[in-house]
Amino acid sequence: MIMNILNYAHYLLEGSIEKGETVIDATCGNGHDTLFLSRVVGSTGQVLAFDIQQEAIDQTRQTLIENNYTNVSLILDSHANVTSHLQTKDIERVGGAIFNLGYLPQSDKQIITSGDSTVEAIENILPVLKSKGLVVLVVYHGHEGGKDEMQTVLKYAMRLPQRAFHVLQYGFINQQNDPPFIIAIQKR
Amino acid sequence: MIMNILNYAHYLLEGSIEKGETVIDATCGNGHDTLFLSRVVGSTGQVLAFDIQQEAIDQTRQTLIENNYTNVSLILDSHANVTSHLQTKDIERVGGAIFNLGYLPQSDKQIITSGDSTVEAIENILPVLKSKGLVVLVVYHGHEGGKDEMQTVLKYAMRLPQRAFHVLQYGFINQQNDPPFIIAIQKR
Repeated sequence: MIMNILNYAHYLLEGSIEKGETVIDATCGNGHDTLFLSRVVGSTGQVLAFDIQQEAIDQTRQTLIENNYTNVSLILDSHANVTSHLQTKDIERVGGAIFNLGYLPQSDKQIITSGDSTVEAIENILPVLKSKGLVVLVVYHGHEGGKDEMQTVLKYAMRLPQRAFHVLQYGFINQQNDPPFIIAIQKR
Repeated sequence: MIMNILNYAHYLLEGSIEKGETVIDATCGNGHDTLFLSRVVGSTGQVLAFDIQQEAIDQTRQTLIENNYTNVSLILDSHANVTSHLQTKDIERVGGAIFNLGYLPQSDKQIITSGDSTVEAIENILPVLKSKGLVVLVVYHGHEGGKDEMQTVLKYAMRLPQRAFHVLQYGFINQQNDPPFIIAIQKR
């Protein structure tokens, strides 16, 4: 059966992340993916969850408390600065990462992820990503500025060398209203 | 993990076709997919396998004989004429279908599937496709005429109403040499 975007993003990560690994939620937003990742890595693993908005960090903290998860570091900073946070925590390898590109639902639509910082973050994650590990991007692009970011990220992803990475695009092409799609980068 | 094109096409069909159903290989080619489908539907099901080239029909027959499969009708005709063959056989519902768009490997590259006949075939199959059933197209487009067919089929697929069908595009975007991609149409 064909999975919807959210289920397929989780399916890819669940199939490639092992218990005990360190993984990254580059855009924790409402905490939905952070909670998912914290379950997948289990109590011996950890999630580094980034967001530039205090509101997102607070929402995610609340979600984690309600579900009794304590294996998450919430980081109020741009995901572009992921390298310094990994170094501070002495982390040399990550098992996977997810990005939700766009704005925080039910929040200020002016505060959006940007193509440049997204690409910078991916560039910083790929060298420490484990072999066969995945960076999954869920690309929302219907908002103002969304098309620019989409083009920047697509252009970057399409140029990743095929000897080093598989880059998959997964999306529904007969839907109205700019539906989100997935770009999944797998290290070979 | 990210599946390659061939594995993903089979994964989708295997997950949606039941034993005992009638399914369609719209382009039997070397018989690889026909054999796969005949295994999936089992001895109580049947495969209608179309090709416009005698060479493809012969290759497929040979493949089936070698593997002891007898649940396949080989039809030397365009898949655009699928309706009359279904009527002759009194078949009112199909469980799924696969198309490989392009030319027969190791054969005459001038003989290719065409966008118009492909669209006609899909239009004839969708009304008899079971609910939740899939039509999977593996789109090879690197050959002469391949881009035209691709555009015709994409345009058609993108216009299928989303209340009636999910249309997924699945493909690798960082590969050289016009790699094939999948269009999967699922009846809702």
